[in-house]
Formats: sequence, structure tokens, C-alpha cells
Amino acid sequence: MKKYNFNAGPCMLPREVIENTANQILDFNGSGLSLAEISHRAKDFQPVVDETVALVKEVLDVPEGYSVIFLGGGASLQFCMAPMNFLKKKAGYVNTGVWAKKAMKEAKLFGEVVEVASSAADNFTYIPKNYNIPTDIDYLHITSNNTIYGTEMHKDLDAPVRMIGDMSSDIFSRPVDVAKYDCIYAGAQKNLSMAGVTIVIVKDEALGKVDRPLPTMLDYRTHVSKGSMFNTPPVVPIYTAMENLRWVKANGGVEAMAKIAKQRADMLYGEIDRNKLFRGTVKEEDRSYMNICFVMNDEYTELQQEFFDFATSKGMVGIKGHRDVGGFRASCYNAQTIEGVQALIDAMKEFEAKH
Amino acid sequence: MKKYNFNAGPCMLPREVIENTANQILDFNGSGLSLAEISHRAKDFQPVVDETVALVKEVLDVPEGYSVIFLGGGASLQFCMAPMNFLKKKAGYVNTGVWAKKAMKEAKLFGEVVEVASSAADNFTYIPKNYNIPTDIDYLHITSNNTIYGTEMHKDLDAPVRMIGDMSSDIFSRPVDVAKYDCIYAGAQKNLSMAGVTIVIVKDEALGKVDRPLPTMLDYRTHVSKGSMFNTPPVVPIYTAMENLRWVKANGGVEAMAKIAKQRADMLYGEIDRNKLFRGTVKEEDRSYMNICFVMNDEYTELQQEFFDFATSKGMVGIKGHRDVGGFRASCYNAQTIEGVQALIDAMKEFEAKH
Repeated sequence: MKKYNFNAGPCMLPREVIENTANQILDFNGSGLSLAEISHRAKDFQPVVDETVALVKEVLDVPEGYSVIFLGGGASLQFCMAPMNFLKKKAGYVNTGVWAKKAMKEAKLFGEVVEVASSAADNFTYIPKNYNIPTDIDYLHITSNNTIYGTEMHKDLDAPVRMIGDMSSDIFSRPVDVAKYDCIYAGAQKNLSMAGVTIVIVKDEALGKVDRPLPTMLDYRTHVSKGSMFNTPPVVPIYTAMENLRWVKANGGVEAMAKIAKQRADMLYGEIDRNKLFRGTVKEEDRSYMNICFVMNDEYTELQQEFFDFATSKGMVGIKGHRDVGGFRASCYNAQTIEGVQALIDAMKEFEAKH
Repeated sequence: MKKYNFNAGPCMLPREVIENTANQILDFNGSGLSLAEISHRAKDFQPVVDETVALVKEVLDVPEGYSVIFLGGGASLQFCMAPMNFLKKKAGYVNTGVWAKKAMKEAKLFGEVVEVASSAADNFTYIPKNYNIPTDIDYLHITSNNTIYGTEMHKDLDAPVRMIGDMSSDIFSRPVDVAKYDCIYAGAQKNLSMAGVTIVIVKDEALGKVDRPLPTMLDYRTHVSKGSMFNTPPVVPIYTAMENLRWVKANGGVEAMAKIAKQRADMLYGEIDRNKLFRGTVKEEDRSYMNICFVMNDEYTELQQEFFDFATSKGMVGIKGHRDVGGFRASCYNAQTIEGVQALIDAMKEFEAKH
């Protein structure tokens, strides 16, 4: 039976990216060695890093004066690395859920943290708007997409200060005005690669402004100056990122990704709104295109497990909602197909007809 | 032409480990999904983590009271994480080369660092012995194998204090008396897996003794308490580690690995000592079984490039010495075959016969 992968992350990747990675693991560039066995200093691997950096810059239209680096440790490590490198006295954070709160917690180790806005009182079912942003903060930190609740900032904020963005779950799904940010970071395992690498885009001239001593590996300048080769980088995850960015570019870049993302989301939210069994959980204008959350309508809550089993029997994988929201979550990252979304919609319709 | 992989790391892995990884990337456990696409919370992946932990404990005979965790960032990140978590006032470091020096540099951010011994004056061509170890230090840090210079501590030190060991390049190549250590860490890309995961073995009761505030991701307790699942771990590199540990176990465990390592090393050092063109660079008793370094004998130095080209033409890969030592380095990690070592010896003999 055909499986439709709606995992929230690690998640679906384009099949050709998967197959090319597997092939290179068997034999890298016809060298007779595996991609997993080559030195990161090998002359065949430097072009992989170079192309991946170039593709990130091209696909996201990164302005001059920014560096792209690849690190281990996940976005969670960036929750402390970003303030270590950028927080002088005071930073502002927009609290849009668990990941934003975790980022705030780490920042408090390095300075004063102002929660400039929060949707906590409504269980993060919307993106705060119309709040004051202090102008005496070193940066404003935002989480552009919130996987757990299914909310998303569909365009970059107009802030009177520099921004730092955790874009782990919607990077490469839409154009970003990188010039507004001193730092953008993202764990790879949504729209970029397999788990094991984190991409960081930093504005070079914003680095080196803090007084605290920084451990070498936690200083972005270390990795910028060595082109992500200060120590052994995660070779295979970087290779897969390159393949995935080639796929994004070949399929029209982030403008095309954004268009298809909206198409998928419109289809699925349309069915959620139409189908009497289900309802969305997020304020309409803030609905994520990446993580589409829905629950059973009040009079049908007892059907939740039955729908889960039914959808599973139709090939859906990973649609269980996060425990903080309940119900269902269909993650639709770049590699998600219209066919997959339609299969889920068909299952929802068929289940409705049964009840 | 058959290639013989002598890369210093990332390095040769057993062919079945490579092939199984590639197959699981195409279809994980017959699920129809790629290993690169599954959630780390998937019920199929938890057994991978559990088995990998169990194999580490079994293969290294880890005593009760220790935890095994998998982190990102490489051993270089451990250079700061280890002192952050264990250095209260003063630590001792044995300086056996570049990696030990890097570890010392990071430790100095967190307390007093005593260099208890050093072979720097002789370009790290031996492992220091018969030095005093202060008893008022929080730990003694050692680098068990030094990839650049080809030196190795073939057995665990008898120290009057707790130890921390960077075993990045010889872990799983010999039995280790884990009970002597509060912490053992190792980047995976020698004897464990592809690059992208770092293994840390920590003594549980040694944790939590420092006063400084620790960023969540840099606190070993975070990862111990969540079984390496606090955030998304590097799924594919962990899978490959499991496959490799299965291979180590099936091939006789670390006792057998140590025996074959010595056999390979005896063969190659024997030829280095016999062959008039070459000489070893390391004091005999400290010669590494993992990284076998040699240079042209004084009267033949002009033949260096010619031998490199000749060996390359015979299929040798990665035998160029590190720039700090020059000459040649043949890395012989667990997956290295007797056939590979013999091929290099044959090339050395043939080259000698030509001159």
C-alpha cells in the first residue's frame, strides 16, 4: 500500500533526494568509496559544501555580507548559541509556543529577556499582532512557524530592530527578506535534509559585538572563518541538503514552493472547514501551510481514534496531533505531494460519509 | 581498480554497514518510508536507539551507573562541554598534540588548567610517562589516540584521580576500563559511524556537581534524562552506529578488534622498519595501531611525491600525512582489512625494488 508521509519532522523528502543519497552512500562520485567514508577534506567534498552554500544563497536570495554555515546539535543548540553571540544587554522574544519558550529560557542565561508578545493565554492558536517592539533591544527573536500548534508568520515582520529567526520548520518554503535578520537558523529535518545538520545564516558584521568569552565551537565566527570545516561537519546530511536544494531550485525555487504550499493548504483547510466532522484549531489568517492541525468537531470527539485508524488504513503516516493540541496534524513540507493531500481529503470525505 | 581506504576520518566502514544503511535509506524496515524521513519519535526508531545504547554497553563492558548518549557537534564541542559539566576548580590535561591542546584551551574558560605532562618539545612523537598527577584536580583529561602524530595509549592510565577521555579515534578498537572515567567522548567518524554523531559515556553520579548555570543543550543531564531524545537526534548516523556495533560484536567484540589491530600494525610497522626507503616517526612503544605514520628515510626524501603517486596508482586512498608531520599516514581503523594493509606493503616493496 502506498504510504503518505505527514510526519512533522524528520519528514518527507523528495524521492530523488533519497535515492541519490542512497546511491552516493554506496559509491560516491564513482570513487569506489562511500559518501560515509570520504574525508571531509577530500577534494570531492569541498564542492559539495560550496554548492550547498551557493544554493542556499541563491534560493533564499541572501544579500552580500552574510555567511551560511552548517553545524551539529540541532536548532535547540542555537537557542543558546544565538544569544551567546548576539545578546549584549537585552533581547525581545515573541512567544508563540514551546520552541519560542525554550529559546527564551536559554537567552535568560545571557541577559535581560523581554517577552514582547505572547499568545500563551489562548494556547498559541494565533500569531500575536499589533504589539510594541522596544527599540533598545539587541534583537527581536521570532519563531516563524510553530509545528505544534500549526501557526505561521506568512511574511517577515516589520520591526524597528534587527531580528533573529528560528525558521526550522518553514525555511525554503517561501521567500524571506534575509536583510531584516542578523541570524536565521533552522534544523535541517523539515525542508532541508535528514536530521543531523543545522543551517545558520549570519550577518558577518553583526558578529563579535559581545564581550563574553565564547567557547570556540559556540562562536559563529569559528565556523564562518573555516567555511564549516573547523571540525568534521556532518558530511552525509550536508550532501542530502545539497540534493534537496537542487530539487527546490529545479522545481521553481521558493516562489514555486510557496505557491504549492498554499495550494496544498487551501485544499486541506477547505476540507477541514467543509467537513462536518472536523474543525481547524488556529485563527484563520495564521494557519500554517506547513503543519495543518485539526480536531474532531465537538459532537464527534468520540470518533477520533476511529478516524486515526481509518486514515492509517488508507496509508496516512504521522497524522497524530501533538499532545499539547490533540487531534490531528498533517505536515505538508516542500516534498509533500498534491496526491498525498488529496488522499487524506478522500479519507476525510469517506469517513464523513460513513457517519 | 580496487580502492584501499586509509582516510584518517571520516574513514572506512564495513561494507555491510554501508549497504545496510543505503538500503534503509531507500526503505526503512519495509515501511515504505526512508530512514531519512521517519520521525525520531516513531515506534520503529526507539528500538534503534535502545539497541545502539545496549551494544555500546555490551561491547565496552560499561559498568552500572553510566549513561550512553548521542549528541551532535563533534568531539570539538565536547572540548567545552566536558569542563562545563565537570570542572569545578582545577583540571589536569595530558598534552599529546593538537586535539589535547584544543581541549585545554576550552577548559581554561571554566577553571584552572594544569598541563600535567607534554610531549610538545618533541613534536608529540611519544606519549609522556612517569609524570606526577596532582590529586587535587577534578579530573585528568587524556587523548587516548592522536591521529595527527600516530601515538596511542595502548592501555588505560593508572591515575589517582577520575579521568575524562577523548577516545574519538580509538574507541571500540580495544577494551577500556570505563570505571576509571567520569566521561568518555568520541566523534563517530572513525570506528563508530558516519560523521554527524558524537557518543558520550558519562558516570551518572559525577554529573550535577558544578555550580555554573548550564545551557540546557550543553548539560549532559538533559540528554541522559531524555535518552538522547530531548531534541531531534541525528537519526541516520545513529542507525549506522547500530549497524557498525552489530558488526563489531559479530566479529568478536573489542578483544578481537584489538587483536586484528595489532596484527595490521605489526605488519605495516614491520615493513616500515625493514624497508630502506621509509622510517616511522613515533617512539616504538607508543606507535598507534590506528594511525600509522611514516616518512621517507633521510637519503630518500626527494622520492616522497613519487611514492605518493605510485601508491595512489595502486589504489591507496588517504595516505598523505598531516602537514604537521609530513610523509604518510595509513589509518587502520576497525574496518581496515589485512588485504588493504598487504596492498600497501606490496606497494612499498615494489617501490623499494624500483630504487
